Amino acid sequence: MQSSWILAIRSVRPLRRLAPTLTPRATCLSLLASRRHFQTSSPRPQDINPAIEDMAPKAPKFEIKTPKGTRDWSGSDMVLREKIFRTITNVFKRHGGVTIDTPVFELKEILAGKYGEDSKLIYDLADQGGELCSLRYDLTVPFARFLAMNKDVSQIKRYHIAKVYRRDQPAVKKGRMREFYQCDFDIAGLYDPMIPDAEIIRIINEVFEGLGWQGKYTIKLNSRKILDGIFQVCGVPDASIRPISSAVDKLDKMPWEDVRKEMVEEKGLAPEVADKIGKYVVLKGKRELLEQLQKDEELAANASMQQGFADMDLLFTYLDAFNAGHSVSFDLSLARGLDYYTGVIYEVVTEGSAPKVSAASADAEKSKKKKGKAGEDEDRSDDPTVGIGSVAAGGRYDNLVGMFSGKTQVPCVGISFGIDRIFSIMRANQAKKERKNEVDVFVMAFGGGKDFTGLLKERSEIAARLWDANIKAEFLYKVKPKLQNQFKAAEANGVPFALILGEDELAQGKIKIKEMGLPEDHPLKEGELIDLKNLAKEVQVRIDRKKQLDAIIEQAEGLRVVGGIKGEDVKVEQQAKEKEGEVTPTPPVQTEEVKAEN
Amino acid sequence: MQSSWILAIRSVRPLRRLAPTLTPRATCLSLLASRRHFQTSSPRPQDINPAIEDMAPKAPKFEIKTPKGTRDWSGSDMVLREKIFRTITNVFKRHGGVTIDTPVFELKEILAGKYGEDSKLIYDLADQGGELCSLRYDLTVPFARFLAMNKDVSQIKRYHIAKVYRRDQPAVKKGRMREFYQCDFDIAGLYDPMIPDAEIIRIINEVFEGLGWQGKYTIKLNSRKILDGIFQVCGVPDASIRPISSAVDKLDKMPWEDVRKEMVEEKGLAPEVADKIGKYVVLKGKRELLEQLQKDEELAANASMQQGFADMDLLFTYLDAFNAGHSVSFDLSLARGLDYYTGVIYEVVTEGSAPKVSAASADAEKSKKKKGKAGEDEDRSDDPTVGIGSVAAGGRYDNLVGMFSGKTQVPCVGISFGIDRIFSIMRANQAKKERKNEVDVFVMAFGGGKDFTGLLKERSEIAARLWDANIKAEFLYKVKPKLQNQFKAAEANGVPFALILGEDELAQGKIKIKEMGLPEDHPLKEGELIDLKNLAKEVQVRIDRKKQLDAIIEQAEGLRVVGGIKGEDVKVEQQAKEKEGEVTPTPPVQTEEVKAEN
Repeated sequence: MQSSWILAIRSVRPLRRLAPTLTPRATCLSLLASRRHFQTSSPRPQDINPAIEDMAPKAPKFEIKTPKGTRDWSGSDMVLREKIFRTITNVFKRHGGVTIDTPVFELKEILAGKYGEDSKLIYDLADQGGELCSLRYDLTVPFARFLAMNKDVSQIKRYHIAKVYRRDQPAVKKGRMREFYQCDFDIAGLYDPMIPDAEIIRIINEVFEGLGWQGKYTIKLNSRKILDGIFQVCGVPDASIRPISSAVDKLDKMPWEDVRKEMVEEKGLAPEVADKIGKYVVLKGKRELLEQLQKDEELAANASMQQGFADMDLLFTYLDAFNAGHSVSFDLSLARGLDYYTGVIYEVVTEGSAPKVSAASADAEKSKKKKGKAGEDEDRSDDPTVGIGSVAAGGRYDNLVGMFSGKTQVPCVGISFGIDRIFSIMRANQAKKERKNEVDVFVMAFGGGKDFTGLLKERSEIAARLWDANIKAEFLYKVKPKLQNQFKAAEANGVPFALILGEDELAQGKIKIKEMGLPEDHPLKEGELIDLKNLAKEVQVRIDRKKQLDAIIEQAEGLRVVGGIKGEDVKVEQQAKEKEGEVTPTPPVQTEEVKAEN
Repeated sequence: MQSSWILAIRSVRPLRRLAPTLTPRATCLSLLASRRHFQTSSPRPQDINPAIEDMAPKAPKFEIKTPKGTRDWSGSDMVLREKIFRTITNVFKRHGGVTIDTPVFELKEILAGKYGEDSKLIYDLADQGGELCSLRYDLTVPFARFLAMNKDVSQIKRYHIAKVYRRDQPAVKKGRMREFYQCDFDIAGLYDPMIPDAEIIRIINEVFEGLGWQGKYTIKLNSRKILDGIFQVCGVPDASIRPISSAVDKLDKMPWEDVRKEMVEEKGLAPEVADKIGKYVVLKGKRELLEQLQKDEELAANASMQQGFADMDLLFTYLDAFNAGHSVSFDLSLARGLDYYTGVIYEVVTEGSAPKVSAASADAEKSKKKKGKAGEDEDRSDDPTVGIGSVAAGGRYDNLVGMFSGKTQVPCVGISFGIDRIFSIMRANQAKKERKNEVDVFVMAFGGGKDFTGLLKERSEIAARLWDANIKAEFLYKVKPKLQNQFKAAEANGVPFALILGEDELAQGKIKIKEMGLPEDHPLKEGELIDLKNLAKEVQVRIDRKKQLDAIIEQAEGLRVVGGIKGEDVKVEQQAKEKEGEVTPTPPVQTEEVKAEN
């Protein structure tokens, strides 16, 4: 066995003597397969044999890139995104959520007729024989298809985090891509009214608090029933209700004058009807707005409105019990584009997610758009009409499943988080970059002079023992590494501990552990000798201790940040702590009606 | 505020009085949007107003299904798959792995010319204007494209768990799909030879041990250099090396006679050359096989062979240090289909993953295939020639990145785990199904008679307090639920604890906690009263205690299973424990050569 390690040590160079002498082969790939120089250790790009270099592949003629509107995720970006996923998944599971996974493409017919005029943005697969398929446009329609197929699933709280595809104008810097993640939580099933709807809003709160947004977001809330009631009362013809609703939905990007223009000039609405609508849709508030609307006799007489009032009244009541109402804004301008909503709708915005646009600049953009398809594929990140948009949106859709299953309806309410937009905002506000990997220990060899073997065998064995103990560890893939290079590699990834092997220490059954980045005057700056016998335990204890310390420091830094937030930002957690032990039973309420029904 | 809760309690029925009186609208969807009956609480499918029912959507004319070769994942299947992902990710991170995410489709040109005759299985996107794209076929080519684009990334240990797409014959039951997960770990960069190659094999061990396979798998190992050396020595013309190599690769599915036939009849190899190959490719063993080959003078004179010998010698040495050699079989029949491998190659098989097939049945299958395209799209799960296949495979590919970047080569070695196949095997061997969700507490109301309010407000508040404390909790979305139905719901999901609110207990500031499923004679069968003040703490203590207990029981059951395994299965962990404290330093070795070089 010993002799092999001699070979290992020798192998650093002797193999180079085996010059590639292979004859040319039929294909370029096979030819390349016979090249050897990357297998030997020493050669760096500059000392490659020029004769071989001539056989190297030429760079391809096309540009090496990802398709337009898509990107790779790696490095600290990827770490941050994974962290966002973990936080959100944790919230979903806390509420009993289970996850499902559907194919990335669906039969073309499944998606057809679900997205109105946005259907043109659907990606189709080429017809290569067999079924015609399209890439999914969202996660909601596949979920409805899933429910229609699985009749035994009549109640489910499901979450789904996956990519969806839209052949849209990309605005990369603002997180609007053609391939992007959606992250959906939906509650399907027949329940007593508004309880799941309220839990969804509680979940929205938990997600953004979990992400550290500390109340700096607004959950805009409305109801399709209230909106439809307003349109009916104002005198919008039934056939125009959805188009007029779409126009109202643009109020977050366009001033009222432009929306009114669209209603009257493009959609043929009578000007006085538009003006009447205008009085309502600018209203926003909390529960008191609901009470105000309920006093409006004209509205109160409308059937759709009555249903909407009852829903919202219950919803506000439940939100109080869930302690989830503080970020909610009842906003009559919220309409949501999609056809399939039937009840409560909501959309979450944060500072800067919906830029104020003057009528003039919107006009300029419009005329630019009409100029033709020249710039169709360009990145629209610098277009002022493209905001970050909402960071989450959803609502109740009670009839979508029935579009697939016929009679069997499964009412649903859900929320979709725009992960890429959330990421863009958090990335911009990030104080320090995330570490790229999670390695806790870098195993090094110390030694010098002619006799230094590099201790590769010992480093390998130590690493293997750490891995066996589920400790994340690395070492340099070099037979005889310099100590300096080993420290550099550890520092580059922010590895917190170095385990340093030396021949003298090994002979005594010891190894040195050194915490990286300690200040000069720290008593443990030079490291500690620990027994090889208890290696895993000794290392684990130090990792745990450091993690606890880091968590305390991070918490302390977090508190400092919270201190800087404006006073009226109510913190869910603080409130929760104040509430501890505060639950008082409601005395049993008896009304004639309840009595009569029992 | 009190009045709203009266409304909530009342709302169970009164809202039904609001009969839908809306007029028909332009679109079916808008019409449906006005339907109300799913918003009210009591109606079940059977008491839907028949007049409305007529307006319900008709079931669509096409079959509601997922595209051929794809499936939905949900329920306990999904939980098991997530568990597999977690185990594998844990191993990858332990070795310093970082993850990247690439788009699901690539420019068509990126994939072109990388997969030989399998290129016909690539899914293309339809040409809808703009770039031509294809769905990724594997994760390796996108990784190579990523490295070519990111010149600053010269060394990386990356993992990537994502779906890939192949227009292949599906064999659903055996886990061979058109959309399936791959799970790749690759080490890219220029290092001293064979150290990363050995770490990949160590990782393979850790993954399958982590999944509980306890040594019941074989890592077949070979080297393209050794294989090419054999072909050269046997007299295979250079142009035929890759086709002959492909034929050899079929030895796990076909008997030697058939492979020989293909070589001679289809690929025009001289019969005596084929026979000479036949003597080598049946050999398998461990390190002693390498020593045996090294003694073969004809082989030893071949340059490619010399490089292969040196590689394998080092590899076996490093595998010993990593304690990772026990499941390895040096197997000269392993050739791997893909063109791009340049060095060591490996493939992991497990019992039953490669069914023995007689020449006759293979012939039958062949003639069936030639019959035409009639059955092209059928599920081939019952086809005996389709085994589960390998559960992981990979190797060294030093020249792939250069195909994109031209001169800048980044040598790579990696492994790809076939998640769906691993899943199929584990699903079949699974003793008990996984729980569908992770809820720890079900919040219930107890009460009876006319005065029972259902305590919805209190249940909501208790649930909100548990969520605040990061405790997973649910309650029934029903204003006045029956206790029996609440227990049923908790049992259906295997929720371990019930928190039961009663008005008398609430008045004393208490609440009952009950562990589900305790035996009749258990002292805590009837539950315990705990203080509402310390709710979260009291609950958390009990959850933690139960989890510890469950872990001990699971471990005990695991040991029982291990006891039944055949004795020669060496267990990595046991060995590791035996080794603790056993690392002995290698005395510094001096050779003339090393001396001279220092």
